[in-house]
Amino acid sequence: MIDTATALELVTIHGSTSTIEQEMELENALDYVLAKDVTSEIDMPPFRQSAMDGYALHLNDGVTYSLVEEIKAGDDTNPTLQKGQAARIFTGAPVPNTANAVVMQEKVRVNGEEIILKEPVDQGANIRPQGEQIRAGAIAITKGTTLKGTHIGFLASLGVTKVSVCTKPSISIVVTGNELVDSGEKLAYGQIYQSNGYMLTAVLKELGYANTSVVTIKDNFQHTKTVLKSSLASHDIVLVTGGISVGDYDFVGKAFAEIGVKEIFYKVKQKPGKPLYYGKKGDTSIFGLPGNPAAALSCFYVYVYPLLKKWEGAEQVSLPRISLPLLADYTVKGTRAQFLKARIQGAGVTILGGQSSAMVKAFGDANALVYLPQNSAEIKKGQMVEAILLPFK
Amino acid sequence: MIDTATALELVTIHGSTSTIEQEMELENALDYVLAKDVTSEIDMPPFRQSAMDGYALHLNDGVTYSLVEEIKAGDDTNPTLQKGQAARIFTGAPVPNTANAVVMQEKVRVNGEEIILKEPVDQGANIRPQGEQIRAGAIAITKGTTLKGTHIGFLASLGVTKVSVCTKPSISIVVTGNELVDSGEKLAYGQIYQSNGYMLTAVLKELGYANTSVVTIKDNFQHTKTVLKSSLASHDIVLVTGGISVGDYDFVGKAFAEIGVKEIFYKVKQKPGKPLYYGKKGDTSIFGLPGNPAAALSCFYVYVYPLLKKWEGAEQVSLPRISLPLLADYTVKGTRAQFLKARIQGAGVTILGGQSSAMVKAFGDANALVYLPQNSAEIKKGQMVEAILLPFK
Repeated sequence: MIDTATALELVTIHGSTSTIEQEMELENALDYVLAKDVTSEIDMPPFRQSAMDGYALHLNDGVTYSLVEEIKAGDDTNPTLQKGQAARIFTGAPVPNTANAVVMQEKVRVNGEEIILKEPVDQGANIRPQGEQIRAGAIAITKGTTLKGTHIGFLASLGVTKVSVCTKPSISIVVTGNELVDSGEKLAYGQIYQSNGYMLTAVLKELGYANTSVVTIKDNFQHTKTVLKSSLASHDIVLVTGGISVGDYDFVGKAFAEIGVKEIFYKVKQKPGKPLYYGKKGDTSIFGLPGNPAAALSCFYVYVYPLLKKWEGAEQVSLPRISLPLLADYTVKGTRAQFLKARIQGAGVTILGGQSSAMVKAFGDANALVYLPQNSAEIKKGQMVEAILLPFK
Repeated sequence: MIDTATALELVTIHGSTSTIEQEMELENALDYVLAKDVTSEIDMPPFRQSAMDGYALHLNDGVTYSLVEEIKAGDDTNPTLQKGQAARIFTGAPVPNTANAVVMQEKVRVNGEEIILKEPVDQGANIRPQGEQIRAGAIAITKGTTLKGTHIGFLASLGVTKVSVCTKPSISIVVTGNELVDSGEKLAYGQIYQSNGYMLTAVLKELGYANTSVVTIKDNFQHTKTVLKSSLASHDIVLVTGGISVGDYDFVGKAFAEIGVKEIFYKVKQKPGKPLYYGKKGDTSIFGLPGNPAAALSCFYVYVYPLLKKWEGAEQVSLPRISLPLLADYTVKGTRAQFLKARIQGAGVTILGGQSSAMVKAFGDANALVYLPQNSAEIKKGQMVEAILLPFK
């Protein structure tokens, strides 16, 4: 059985990357990964810009300047100031070529057509140099960046209207289990409601992946094989839940083998999610996730998330990890590495109650997964642990 | 001038909460805030459930059991086991009422119609009690919870198909400045591209707020008044960028006063975003944000985010804050409290370069804002600082 680091490495090595790019209006490109560097066509700021409401000065040795002009934001004037002359200027307005400082309005006394400095002004003060933020021809955002709202804002400020992005994967979610019934129906003895399909669809949607479909199948070998074959043929990523253990009615692994899926790994020394399966057929990646919702979700954030990002060509594929002190003692049962639902807030991280693989409730309160390596045994309050940050709004 | 804590408190006190609820299909309710507690109509699990592939036992004093039944997940059988009898059972299957333990298949030896235990089995082992996760009639998720994908999964497992949620606010973004031109046009001297509208629309969309519109206005008092009046009349929240300083061509503050907006505060002892304005007219909240994009965005995450959450009736309105060691020395200029773009990763937090109010680029690399209180002066590597986590995917 492999360890968690090896499993993660295998996913990031074997996961395919989309070969299709598309050009997109900037405002629709949120959550997409850049397929090409974006180069700025302008200097930003495009001109020497006043950072303050005040006075642009052509510095002389004295403290008195004669006021000869007014320049508002948006004005296209570039008056020539002689030494000792000043122009009233406002934030964002272009500083005349002949001015070499801007003094804040609070730091002068105005006397008719003259202003008198209350204190010395440094050369270059309160002027944003042309191209301070970026120069024309320089790379604004590199290929492989997942576009956030802040990136959209930055690119808009450079006048960018279109970007090249990678397509997102089409994802098939296959939920297995004779015991599952659809919501809205009445439960008979022995049945539970199907929830993995709803859950995975929703967490994928949260991350910006809307191209998903769900199919539910019974524990029947022939049916499993047929459905998986068709899912594999028409999707970039297939996520199967359940049916991957060694029980007599677990048909997923056998079906993978028969339809020619190449196993990359099966079983990881971890809790939850020991019987995790990862395989490939052509460019399609296949995960066999646990049937228990909480276990499926832990595996999703640790292993499927990087696969999705890799598919999109993202530079950064895994969720950020950070060291934090544990806020209460925690005793690990067993020797496997653990991914534990946790809440980081204030002075550190708290491992939540309800860690059972079947219980997804604790995930609602979690904003992190605490990773404890193999043989962690007893962890004391104050000890540093590794927390994987979970996406949130 | 008030401090940052007072400003945040005033926003959360004065922000209105939506009075309109709507019933929604569970699968469409992602990112909405629950308007009512959701109560479970079932026990979960609904029956005593096997947590393992193995054998359900009616325990006796010996190690040998006779195998009399087989129960798969989804079966509705509930056979009577006598003391010393066992049933083959699979993960998720109902454990017979007469069984009092499940033994893992790895821990028995099978001998024809008999199984022999390799080690003692505890009473209740590997049985998930009925209602272990939640009891019928108990609250599954409380009013005020923002529904994440994990919540959708949990509610689906309880058979919930519809939920009552609060409506989301309609948001008007008003961008001011004579210097702004639309992307696609050519910049004249003194002009820059309008980016705040694109940026705020995108960060709102990232957070699940799609009901937004942008209007751009020139620095003209009459026009400013007319547009703000109409924005206020038809939206729940109005975000204005720029025009709020005391420059001769800053008309936003004067317009607010003339159209009857009640000022809650103006100016906060902080950097960036000193001239931040917050006011109310009826139930509509109005923010006067800085014109500089990075300053506007800092104020957005610190003050507007809680306002949006309050409007939706969310229990938790502010972004999570956490104490972390600084990974490099940092010197603060000036005495105001600071919100600094930062990246948390590994052993702590790094304050990024490019903190200028005009530069939004650093926000692309940031996953947190470091908050430094007034008069922080010099912060040394290793010193604990407060980091506000930014939403991410």
